[in-house]
Amino acid sequence: MADDVQDAADAELSEPVRRRGKPGSSPGTLHIDPAAPKPVLRVMAYGPDRLREQTLDSAHAVRALLGQEPVTWINVDGLGDAGVLQELAAIFGIHRLALEDVVHVYQRAKVEPYADHHFVIARMPHLDGRLATEQISFFVGRTFVLTFQEQEGDCFDLVRERVREQRGRLRSAGPDYLLYALLDAIIDAYFPVLEAYGERLDEMEDEVIAAPRHDAISRIQDVKRDLLALRRAVWPLREAVNTLVRDDSEHFHAETRIHLRDCYDHTVQVLDMVETYRELGSGLLEIHLSSLSHRMNEVMKVLTIIATIFIPLTFIAGVYGMNFNPASSPWNMPELSWYWGYPFFLVLMLVVAVVLLLMFRSKGWIEFPRRRRRE
Amino acid sequence: MADDVQDAADAELSEPVRRRGKPGSSPGTLHIDPAAPKPVLRVMAYGPDRLREQTLDSAHAVRALLGQEPVTWINVDGLGDAGVLQELAAIFGIHRLALEDVVHVYQRAKVEPYADHHFVIARMPHLDGRLATEQISFFVGRTFVLTFQEQEGDCFDLVRERVREQRGRLRSAGPDYLLYALLDAIIDAYFPVLEAYGERLDEMEDEVIAAPRHDAISRIQDVKRDLLALRRAVWPLREAVNTLVRDDSEHFHAETRIHLRDCYDHTVQVLDMVETYRELGSGLLEIHLSSLSHRMNEVMKVLTIIATIFIPLTFIAGVYGMNFNPASSPWNMPELSWYWGYPFFLVLMLVVAVVLLLMFRSKGWIEFPRRRRRE
Amino acid sequence: MADDVQDAADAELSEPVRRRGKPGSSPGTLHIDPAAPKPVLRVMAYGPDRLREQTLDSAHAVRALLGQEPVTWINVDGLGDAGVLQELAAIFGIHRLALEDVVHVYQRAKVEPYADHHFVIARMPHLDGRLATEQISFFVGRTFVLTFQEQEGDCFDLVRERVREQRGRLRSAGPDYLLYALLDAIIDAYFPVLEAYGERLDEMEDEVIAAPRHDAISRIQDVKRDLLALRRAVWPLREAVNTLVRDDSEHFHAETRIHLRDCYDHTVQVLDMVETYRELGSGLLEIHLSSLSHRMNEVMKVLTIIATIFIPLTFIAGVYGMNFNPASSPWNMPELSWYWGYPFFLVLMLVVAVVLLLMFRSKGWIEFPRRRRRE
Amino acid sequence: MADDVQDAADAELSEPVRRRGKPGSSPGTLHIDPAAPKPVLRVMAYGPDRLREQTLDSAHAVRALLGQEPVTWINVDGLGDAGVLQELAAIFGIHRLALEDVVHVYQRAKVEPYADHHFVIARMPHLDGRLATEQISFFVGRTFVLTFQEQEGDCFDLVRERVREQRGRLRSAGPDYLLYALLDAIIDAYFPVLEAYGERLDEMEDEVIAAPRHDAISRIQDVKRDLLALRRAVWPLREAVNTLVRDDSEHFHAETRIHLRDCYDHTVQVLDMVETYRELGSGLLEIHLSSLSHRMNEVMKVLTIIATIFIPLTFIAGVYGMNFNPASSPWNMPELSWYWGYPFFLVLMLVVAVVLLLMFRSKGWIEFPRRRRRE
Amino acid sequence: MADDVQDAADAELSEPVRRRGKPGSSPGTLHIDPAAPKPVLRVMAYGPDRLREQTLDSAHAVRALLGQEPVTWINVDGLGDAGVLQELAAIFGIHRLALEDVVHVYQRAKVEPYADHHFVIARMPHLDGRLATEQISFFVGRTFVLTFQEQEGDCFDLVRERVREQRGRLRSAGPDYLLYALLDAIIDAYFPVLEAYGERLDEMEDEVIAAPRHDAISRIQDVKRDLLALRRAVWPLREAVNTLVRDDSEHFHAETRIHLRDCYDHTVQVLDMVETYRELGSGLLEIHLSSLSHRMNEVMKVLTIIATIFIPLTFIAGVYGMNFNPASSPWNMPELSWYWGYPFFLVLMLVVAVVLLLMFRSKGWIEFPRRRRRE
Repeated sequence: MADDVQDAADAELSEPVRRRGKPGSSPGTLHIDPAAPKPVLRVMAYGPDRLREQTLDSAHAVRALLGQEPVTWINVDGLGDAGVLQELAAIFGIHRLALEDVVHVYQRAKVEPYADHHFVIARMPHLDGRLATEQISFFVGRTFVLTFQEQEGDCFDLVRERVREQRGRLRSAGPDYLLYALLDAIIDAYFPVLEAYGERLDEMEDEVIAAPRHDAISRIQDVKRDLLALRRAVWPLREAVNTLVRDDSEHFHAETRIHLRDCYDHTVQVLDMVETYRELGSGLLEIHLSSLSHRMNEVMKVLTIIATIFIPLTFIAGVYGMNFNPASSPWNMPELSWYWGYPFFLVLMLVVAVVLLLMFRSKGWIEFPRRRRRE
Repeated sequence: MADDVQDAADAELSEPVRRRGKPGSSPGTLHIDPAAPKPVLRVMAYGPDRLREQTLDSAHAVRALLGQEPVTWINVDGLGDAGVLQELAAIFGIHRLALEDVVHVYQRAKVEPYADHHFVIARMPHLDGRLATEQISFFVGRTFVLTFQEQEGDCFDLVRERVREQRGRLRSAGPDYLLYALLDAIIDAYFPVLEAYGERLDEMEDEVIAAPRHDAISRIQDVKRDLLALRRAVWPLREAVNTLVRDDSEHFHAETRIHLRDCYDHTVQVLDMVETYRELGSGLLEIHLSSLSHRMNEVMKVLTIIATIFIPLTFIAGVYGMNFNPASSPWNMPELSWYWGYPFFLVLMLVVAVVLLLMFRSKGWIEFPRRRRRE
Repeated sequence: MADDVQDAADAELSEPVRRRGKPGSSPGTLHIDPAAPKPVLRVMAYGPDRLREQTLDSAHAVRALLGQEPVTWINVDGLGDAGVLQELAAIFGIHRLALEDVVHVYQRAKVEPYADHHFVIARMPHLDGRLATEQISFFVGRTFVLTFQEQEGDCFDLVRERVREQRGRLRSAGPDYLLYALLDAIIDAYFPVLEAYGERLDEMEDEVIAAPRHDAISRIQDVKRDLLALRRAVWPLREAVNTLVRDDSEHFHAETRIHLRDCYDHTVQVLDMVETYRELGSGLLEIHLSSLSHRMNEVMKVLTIIATIFIPLTFIAGVYGMNFNPASSPWNMPELSWYWGYPFFLVLMLVVAVVLLLMFRSKGWIEFPRRRRRE
Repeated sequence: MADDVQDAADAELSEPVRRRGKPGSSPGTLHIDPAAPKPVLRVMAYGPDRLREQTLDSAHAVRALLGQEPVTWINVDGLGDAGVLQELAAIFGIHRLALEDVVHVYQRAKVEPYADHHFVIARMPHLDGRLATEQISFFVGRTFVLTFQEQEGDCFDLVRERVREQRGRLRSAGPDYLLYALLDAIIDAYFPVLEAYGERLDEMEDEVIAAPRHDAISRIQDVKRDLLALRRAVWPLREAVNTLVRDDSEHFHAETRIHLRDCYDHTVQVLDMVETYRELGSGLLEIHLSSLSHRMNEVMKVLTIIATIFIPLTFIAGVYGMNFNPASSPWNMPELSWYWGYPFFLVLMLVVAVVLLLMFRSKGWIEFPRRRRRE
Repeated sequence: MADDVQDAADAELSEPVRRRGKPGSSPGTLHIDPAAPKPVLRVMAYGPDRLREQTLDSAHAVRALLGQEPVTWINVDGLGDAGVLQELAAIFGIHRLALEDVVHVYQRAKVEPYADHHFVIARMPHLDGRLATEQISFFVGRTFVLTFQEQEGDCFDLVRERVREQRGRLRSAGPDYLLYALLDAIIDAYFPVLEAYGERLDEMEDEVIAAPRHDAISRIQDVKRDLLALRRAVWPLREAVNTLVRDDSEHFHAETRIHLRDCYDHTVQVLDMVETYRELGSGLLEIHLSSLSHRMNEVMKVLTIIATIFIPLTFIAGVYGMNFNPASSPWNMPELSWYWGYPFFLVLMLVVAVVLLLMFRSKGWIEFPRRRRRE
């Protein structure tokens, strides 16, 4: 699974680079990704008392629906048909640069005020096996909210429930409040993702301390990449929400602004967590390096202890393996013919070994079983 | 104990992630933690001359008390009953988003002005075995201070004493001054926590220099985490206090503002210390790595000295252990039959050993006992 | 190829240092690089209905063309003739300091408003084998755009196509929109360059993890240099575009400003990517160091395992190679004459080896084939 | 001495933590340190023509002196008597929070304007054996300067001389100028301290490069701590002086403000030096680690050279120490009976050794004496 | 030469610390360095039509010259005579604090407006063998420019030429333009210095990668120090020039301000380069550490290969050097009497060696000559 996440993060990081037209091409040109799913339009038109929900066949039908209820939410899943998108742009008076941003689906979160609507981009996180962020584009006017998603599947189901069940103030409030509810759902969707990374970091820390494996470093790097990608998704989102909080146009009611302030607090919390995790991620690397050093020390100590004990012993044995001729001189290795020669030699070696072991112990290289266990 | 602190810090860091509703759920929904203790209401109503102190059974009784004395302080310990909280919210006109923040007990410190009261959140540190921060929420109106705590036990006892004993200007001042006194108590509570971490850092530095243990790195990481958590608790607190200092609403008297400025100085001092400790913590890691390197150097030097002395000696011994046949040629190992052959060999080896030892000494690898002791 | 890129990046970094007059020389002096190509003037004069395109022989002919069409774009490739440049400066009223900046071709991107034109500098990236950035200078007046390039070859071909084919709003808009179109083409040209570096980083990460080669470090350093050079090119460009967005002179129409805002978003995206890549580049270095450490650990483990197993065995063999005289004492190496002496010795050695191998396995230094393959 | 400095720096860093009342205690409560020396009051009252200098017994006598001369400077050495301090506070109208700050002697430098005086805190460095900073508190009114010091001994003697000797404009100027003169003396006192640290850093760099000792790392850490403490003392001082420069109350004459601007320049210079030294201090650590690595390389090279030369030689000697029976086969070690067997063996070993030495030289591991000396 | 540069940089860094009076001494006191050269006054008085150039004996003669021509430039080389300086101060109405700054020659670059002149400080770089920066002080009034230099020799010769040769607009412009010309000459003088450091960094990078020498680290540190010193010289210079650009007093004509803006661009470029070089310098250190690690790996691999091959072989040889008595048992080393015993043994050893070599090759530790050469 680690590999999947890694690939996803790679995609994430280099996405803005790939899906672009040729340098110098006309602004506002729509480069439709041929693999993108065809658009599906789902409309929820509601007021305090009524709710109409339907899936439309064509963009044309939207025009008839508009303005019939206080709030009309048109949600478009899939960006694979330039015609539909352009028709929608014509209906809602969307600037072609904005439409280009909707289609070129790596955009940073932002808010752009236009004459009679606000254009908002946010990025929604997915983490089913792989991390990915999907671009959600919002156009919020006086009576409508138009949202574009790259594909089906989002975190808005609870918002839809709230509209249907007439819970809370959603049904009685305007499109600005719906925008808030959707943004809040997106931001809330970051929390489980963060939780998953928090757990991954914890696991990796335990693992790195226990046994530094070779691939640890690249997995740490992967997590750092993902957190970088998260940060790049959330940081501009925070700015965007803050822009909305301070927006003094009549589009946003005072009550909605209080809710957006709350929403802003949540993005700050998410960023806070991302930064904390990034710092922990950097710490992981240092732990890994320290673990490697420590491991090396362990290896070296074993080598040194074994070698240091046996090298002198081997030398002594080597001395008595020499072939000096005892016959030619009484000084030539008389030890070899001593009565206690061999036993003396064995005792000598034992003494040397014990002395060396005590020396290592005094240096703290060897610990007695009880202490080793505690470590 | 280190483990406990570690777990606590983990909890601290991931707390904001866990206690949340599903993404997209209605704002202002109260997700009561089933394990949270039931609320206990303690009221202190006082003016310059009178003091009424009582523990209430129900939130209903609060309404009767309000406004009877210049200042009514209602302290709620425990957030485990949505009914009580909502009744209090109704009495004091608390916004449902604010109430949600009170219950979802990981919030950053903040100040939010509402029409007729201020909503303040601060985090109070605990360090009995484990570090934890508890969220304290304040609502400060013209005649009341309403505080919510996650559980019983706080650092406000001295403030209560001051109210009871009519010391200082607390009894004669308004709710704004009481807010100041409580915030100041919270900030003062960070100092002993910092002192404990200061001592821990000192101990760890000594230990890391003396002997780099394998778990040192994870304990350093733990302290860094805790300091990160402290920083995340205090940084927004500083901002919050600063917001209060600059607040120009009539809620805060000039005199209180002077006291809040003093309080702000204290948060700056706390942050200053936290930053200093964080820097020392990072230094610890470098000391640890350097200690590991130094230790490795020591090990290698011993290995090298022993090996380098004995390897040539063993070689010489090996030479004279060869079985070249002296009978077939006068050039074949005549040394073996020399009269002084073996003694000469022993002297040769001594010379080699001494030369190598002198060489190591000139490189500074061996120090004489007197110098070693100084090191 | 890596070497080429490296040299180019070096040139890039030290360029601003080299092409300068002596300290104290008069401002506005043109130091023409003798190796610079002679200027070639290409003019496109167009309005909604007409387009004249021609290559001019002399700067003189420009004067006649000016003002005949709503927009006249004079593009000068090559800065190798002071006379031509000064004549153009005279025609368009260019300040001598601006002209100096045009010729001294390492300038940071910037915008300078003059009385009746804007002076804009941007840097265009090239990456055919080597990375280089070329300085493009723009003078934008009410009816003209004058661009200077160091040499032929640019990323403006699609813009020229759009002028010729009457696509988009380019033909009907003014010089301000042409400036936008050219700047946007430059910024778009950074994306493929970034993509190339993204791929290079990915390759290098794989390579560094697989096998840390000695030259990896200098290649990482090269990529970091290039990214530094990119950052130094784009950062001021972002500022310049932002200046244009906020410029409130009548030179820039509201619609153009919306397009420049889009263009600004793109520079922010480029910078975002550069910063991300720089962070990944720094991570590479850490991976490299960790890989080196890990490799060292591997080497040491092999050495330790082999040495630790054979050193004791060699010692034992050495013992039985000693020449103690069995004749002089029954205690002198009676093992040598035991019936099972040699077989016993072989078994002893096998036991020692197996015990040591088990010890290493318990330390996790040896893994069984199945696990080794997975790692 | 290094130890002393270390302890002092520790004290410095944790000081703000220790000298505090219990959390929640009443603001303005004076916690007199029982070990603090009793206050000694020294008064200098002067105008252009007259100077009265005396040491007072009680705070009471101050009241009579006030206002008799244009400037009255009351200097209080020692904070060990709450009564005296409170009497002074009453005389000069000092706010109890300010007085608390005077007594709780770890405060950051700051300026607080009160209705009819300014309250200024600065920290004065001492470096006689140990580094310490002493808190100096100033109250500057229309006719007086009141200074509090923790103990006797300061850097104001030259200022006193200037008052006495009627040099410069001190005698003719007001209390604002005296404040400037005292602050300037404090800031000037940082320069010799910095010089001492500059020298210490130089010495340590030489030492670390020459021979990385184990305690180097903790001494580097000590210097970094001290520089951190210096920075924490000077940074707010810079802010405080800047506040005074920009203060537009009538307390400060234009001429004094010019002098304060000069004083501000000095604090900037001090901070500049501290930052530079901090950067050098961080560099030291890297040098230390690099030195350790380099030292390890040296050790390893020696080990490798010795081992690599002798291990093959020992092997060869071992071969000819084998006991294959030449009697049982002509193939069994015929070399042993060759006429030139042993000499050939000796030459073989020489050749092997020389080849290996040449190989090491080609790798750059061995240098010839002339080159080694240069290194 | 490296040493010289190092010493110079040291001087540079600690200069501000040394040349100061005692703490508390009167502001405006001139501490004349006894080693400073005596002042030499050179005057250039010019207008569009006339130029008078002379070297003056005394400061007194200056007064007569002033105001006779539109611009009088008095350049003072050498600060070794308090009398001359004070006389000049009297003539030009220089504040004693400004004069103190002129004499205490470590000052950061700055601009201070006085009533009828501007006081500007800049630092001029020298790099003849050693890096040093010299303080140049400017006083610019309505009709004069007064410059003070520490010693003879500057980068103003080309400016003087321009005055003499009536080139450019220098002769017809006012003192503000002369100030610009001089500042521009100073900033231009940084470029060759930067070029030198750029080359030094390139050389060092090559050297560090090729062979990590022990002194590399201190030389890297030296370059980092120098770049730090450059940064400290240029950063405030940028601020100072920016202050002049934005100065709206009538001293500076609009045209001069355009030139100063150009000059500001140059300081930004210098700073840009310094920052780039500082980053490269930090990279050098990492390369050095990586090179050390890589070198260590190389050493270890050689040791491991040699040891790992010969240790088992030596063991085998040791086995057959044992003296088990074949007479006492048929199991005691029958190999020794085999007919093919010794040849079999030799083949066995060859096989072991080849197997180990193949194993090392599969680990990538040994490369075949062709590949090794490429590396």
